[in-house]
Amino acid sequence: MSSDPERSESSFVEYGIEDRPGTATSVVLGLQHYLTMVGANVAVPLILAAAMGMPTDVTARFVGTFFVVSGVATLAQTTIGNRYPIVQGAPFSMLAPALAIVATVTAMPGEPAWQTQLRTLQGAIIGAAIAEVAIGYFGIVGKLRQFLSPVVIAPTITLIGLALFDVGQVTAADTNWWLLGLTLLLIVGFSQYLDSRHRVFQLFPVLLGIVAAWLVAAGLSVVGVYEASATGYVDLGAVAGAQPLMPIYPLQWGMPRFGLAFAIGMFAGVLASILESFGDYHAIARLVGNGMPSERRINHGIGMEGLMNVFSGLMGTGGATSYSENIGAIGLTGVASRYVVQIGAVVMLVVGYVGYFGQLVATIPDPIVGGLFVAMFAQIVAVGLSNLKYVDLDSSRNVFVLGFALFVGLAIPEYIGSVGDVATFRQGLAGVPVAGSVLSQRLIADTVYVIGSTGMAVGGLAALVLDNTIPGTREERGLAEWDRIAEPESAFQPFWKGLFGENAEEESVRND
Amino acid sequence: MSSDPERSESSFVEYGIEDRPGTATSVVLGLQHYLTMVGANVAVPLILAAAMGMPTDVTARFVGTFFVVSGVATLAQTTIGNRYPIVQGAPFSMLAPALAIVATVTAMPGEPAWQTQLRTLQGAIIGAAIAEVAIGYFGIVGKLRQFLSPVVIAPTITLIGLALFDVGQVTAADTNWWLLGLTLLLIVGFSQYLDSRHRVFQLFPVLLGIVAAWLVAAGLSVVGVYEASATGYVDLGAVAGAQPLMPIYPLQWGMPRFGLAFAIGMFAGVLASILESFGDYHAIARLVGNGMPSERRINHGIGMEGLMNVFSGLMGTGGATSYSENIGAIGLTGVASRYVVQIGAVVMLVVGYVGYFGQLVATIPDPIVGGLFVAMFAQIVAVGLSNLKYVDLDSSRNVFVLGFALFVGLAIPEYIGSVGDVATFRQGLAGVPVAGSVLSQRLIADTVYVIGSTGMAVGGLAALVLDNTIPGTREERGLAEWDRIAEPESAFQPFWKGLFGENAEEESVRND
Repeated sequence: MSSDPERSESSFVEYGIEDRPGTATSVVLGLQHYLTMVGANVAVPLILAAAMGMPTDVTARFVGTFFVVSGVATLAQTTIGNRYPIVQGAPFSMLAPALAIVATVTAMPGEPAWQTQLRTLQGAIIGAAIAEVAIGYFGIVGKLRQFLSPVVIAPTITLIGLALFDVGQVTAADTNWWLLGLTLLLIVGFSQYLDSRHRVFQLFPVLLGIVAAWLVAAGLSVVGVYEASATGYVDLGAVAGAQPLMPIYPLQWGMPRFGLAFAIGMFAGVLASILESFGDYHAIARLVGNGMPSERRINHGIGMEGLMNVFSGLMGTGGATSYSENIGAIGLTGVASRYVVQIGAVVMLVVGYVGYFGQLVATIPDPIVGGLFVAMFAQIVAVGLSNLKYVDLDSSRNVFVLGFALFVGLAIPEYIGSVGDVATFRQGLAGVPVAGSVLSQRLIADTVYVIGSTGMAVGGLAALVLDNTIPGTREERGLAEWDRIAEPESAFQPFWKGLFGENAEEESVRND
Repeated sequence: MSSDPERSESSFVEYGIEDRPGTATSVVLGLQHYLTMVGANVAVPLILAAAMGMPTDVTARFVGTFFVVSGVATLAQTTIGNRYPIVQGAPFSMLAPALAIVATVTAMPGEPAWQTQLRTLQGAIIGAAIAEVAIGYFGIVGKLRQFLSPVVIAPTITLIGLALFDVGQVTAADTNWWLLGLTLLLIVGFSQYLDSRHRVFQLFPVLLGIVAAWLVAAGLSVVGVYEASATGYVDLGAVAGAQPLMPIYPLQWGMPRFGLAFAIGMFAGVLASILESFGDYHAIARLVGNGMPSERRINHGIGMEGLMNVFSGLMGTGGATSYSENIGAIGLTGVASRYVVQIGAVVMLVVGYVGYFGQLVATIPDPIVGGLFVAMFAQIVAVGLSNLKYVDLDSSRNVFVLGFALFVGLAIPEYIGSVGDVATFRQGLAGVPVAGSVLSQRLIADTVYVIGSTGMAVGGLAALVLDNTIPGTREERGLAEWDRIAEPESAFQPFWKGLFGENAEEESVRND
C-alpha cells in the first residue's frame, strides 16, 4: 500500500506523501479535504464581511475569492513550495489585525466604506507579506531549527488545536448539540471503531459524517422541525438563488491602499502564522514518519506562504497560510497523499467560481461544522502529544517546560482577551511606569497583542526560551534522537533544480 | 538522601513519602506547603462570603474556619486515611453547587440571610458527604481502577492544572503583571536555574519567591507607589487590627439545615472532587515513583475525604478534599515527605485560630498568588504529561484518545459557561424534545452541569469511555507496564490493622 521512499520512522499514515490512491478514491478524498477546511475558510470572510458591513451579493463573491486563493495557494505550495500535502487558507491569526484595520478606516469619496476598508486591508497584507517572503527565502526561520527540540515542538503543535477550544461553532450557547454530537459521533465512530470493518469508513470518515449529518439536518429543515432561525437549519432555497458564475480576478475591488502602520499591525499576524506553519510542517513530518523537515524545506515553505499572501492581497482576501485542520484530517484518515490535496485544491477553485457549489457548501449549519472541528482539533492535539515519544519524560526539567508552555499558552491569551481590544491594550501599556512610552508604540504594542492572543505562539516561545536555557542534555531533550532521524538537506530540492536538471544524482537517490 | 523503601520506578523527588528532613528544614518546608494552598483556600471562602453578603468580622472567622478544617483533614488523611502526603482543602468543584444553594435560600426569621444560607450549605455538604463515605469504604471507586490506563490518567491529571488557565488571579484584566511576572520569575528561577547552585533554592523556591515578591509589594505600598485600590497593594494596617484569637468550633453557626435537593446538587460537586482526588493520588504515586495506588489505598482515601467533608459540614466550610496545588509544590521542590505535609497542617491550624497570622497571610496580593498559581498549575500539567512515558505514542488510537480528552475537557466547560448558570442550564434541558422532562430533573441537570463544568471530569470520562471501547492491546495502552509496577494490595494497610497488630508480618515487609 505505502510506497513513500523517504519514510524512516514509524508513521501514522497508510498513504505517504508520494502515494497516489486510485483516481475515483482520490477525487472523493480530495473532496473530503476540501470539506475539512470549509468551516474556517467560510468563517474568516463572514466575520470580515460583517465587520465591514458588506452587502450580501458582494459577500458571496468575497467568500468565493477566499476559495480561489486557497486553491491557487495550495497548488503552489504543493508543487513549487515545500511540497508537503498541506492545504492553504486564510488564518485566524491574521484576522485580529484585519479587524483592527477595518475598525479604523472610513469611506473614501465615491465608494462605500467596506470597499475602502478592504483595499486598505489588501495593502496591509501585501506589505506584511513582502517581509514574509524575505524571511522565508533569506532562510531566517530555518535558522531557528537548531533551537527546536521535541520539548518545544510538542506543546506548540498541541496548542494549535487546544487553543481553539472556544471556537464559536463548538461553544456558542445556542448551538444545536444534538446535531453537533451526531456529527462528532459519526466521525469518531467511522474513524476509530468501524475503520477496521470496511475501507470506506477508514478513508472517508469526515465526508460520511458530514454528509449524513447534513442529510438529517436538511430533512428536519424541509419537514419544518428546524425553523429558519434555528442554528441547525439548512437553507436549500438559497442554493437555487445563487449566482451561477462568480467574476473573481486580481484587483477586482480596485487598487490596494498602502500604509506603513497597517502593514506593521498585519505583520504581527503574519509572524504568528509563520510560527503556526512551522508547527504544521513538523506535524506533517511526524505523521508521515519522514523525520523533521530540513532547513531548506522550511525556508521554501515560508517563502511560498509569503508569495501567496501577496497574491491574496492582490485578490482581496484575508491571507493564505498552512491550515492545521487538514493535518487533523490526515491523522484521522491516514491519507497524506500530495496528489489528493492537489485534487482538493482543484475542488476549491471550482467551488470558488461556481456560485451553486459555494452556496450548497454554505448550507452546512454551524453545529455540523462544530462537530467536525472537535474531531479535527483533537487530532491536532494528538499529533502534538505524539512528539513526546522522543522526550525523556522522567526528566523534571522537560516536563516542567511542557507544562509551563501549555498553561501559559492558554492563560496569556485569556488575559489579553480580558483586557479588551488592541486599542485598550495599547492604552494600558502606555500607563506602564518608565517603559510606557516605548511599549505603547504601535509596532510593539500590536505585535505583543497579536502574538499574545495566539496560544501556540505564546506557548511555543515560552518553551523555546526555557528549553534552551534550563540546563539539560541533548539526549534528554530528544535532540540527539531528532538529529538522527532528521531528513538530510538534500531530501528537499527547490523546484527550479528539478527544472534545470541540477542535482540530478541526488534527486535519483531520493526517489529511489 | 532518599530512603523510601517502596520506590521501584524512577521518581521526581529527593525526599520520599517516608523520609524526614531535619526539623528546622521540615518546619520551613511545611510553611511553604501551607503557602502553596493559601490562594485557593482563601479564594473559596471569600467568594462564598461575598455571595452570602457576610459581614467583614464574620468573614475573618469564616476564613479561619477553612484553615482549621484543612489542618484537621490533612492530619487525618495523612495518618489514618490513604497516608499520601496530600494537603486537604476546600475544592473549586464544590463551589459551583454551593453558590447555587446560596442563590436560592432566603433568611429564616430571627437570623440574617447569610446564616440561613450557610446552615443550608452545611446540611447539603453533610448529606452529600455521607454518600461519599459509602462510596469510599464500600470500595466503589477502587473498582474503577481496572479500567484506567495511563491513556486515561494522563489527560485527567493534565486537565486538573490546565483547566485552571482562566483563574482570576492570573487573568484578571486589572492584574499587576509586573508583580505577577516577578513572582513567577523568582519561583521558576529558583526551582529550575539556581536549584543546582544552592540547596536553599532547590528546597524553598516557592517560599523565597513569595516572600521576596511580598517584600517588594509591601515596600511599594508603604512608600505610596501602590495605592490602597491597586491590585498589588499590601494592607499592613489590617494586620494590627486583627482579632487575636478566633472562636472556631463545630456547629458555631447553629444547626445545619437538611434538604434532599440541596444535598443532591452538592453531590455532583463531590463526585467531581472524587474524580480529581483519584487523579491526585495517581499524580503523587507517579511523582514519588511508587507505582500506581492500590485499590484499597484509593478506597480509604476517598472514604476519609467523605468523613472530612462531614466534618467540614459540621464546622461550616466549603468542603475538604485533596488539593492539587500541593502536588505542584512537591514536583517543584522534590520533597514528598508526609512529615513535612503534617507540619504544614499544624501551621494551618495555628493560622486558623490566631487572627494576626491569618490577616498577615491575607495581605498577600492577588498578583503574587497569580504568579504562584502559574508555577503550580504548570507543574500539575507536567505531572500529567509525564504519565505518557508508559503509553505507546506511535499508536494512533492512543494519541486520538489523549487529544480528544484534552480538547473536550476545555471545550465543554467553556460551552456550559456560555450557556449560563445552573438554572438557565436546567431550563435549556427542559426544552429538549422527547427527553426534556427527564433531563431537566434536578438530580440529572445539576449533575451534568457541575461535572460538565469541571474540565478534568469531562476529559477523564471521555478518555475512560474511548480508551475502554476503541480496540487496543493492553501493551499499547500501557496497562501491561502499569500492572507490572502497581503497588501490591498489601502495600497499604488500613490504620486499624496497625493498631490491633494484624498483618504485622506484611507491615514489617513493607517497612523493611
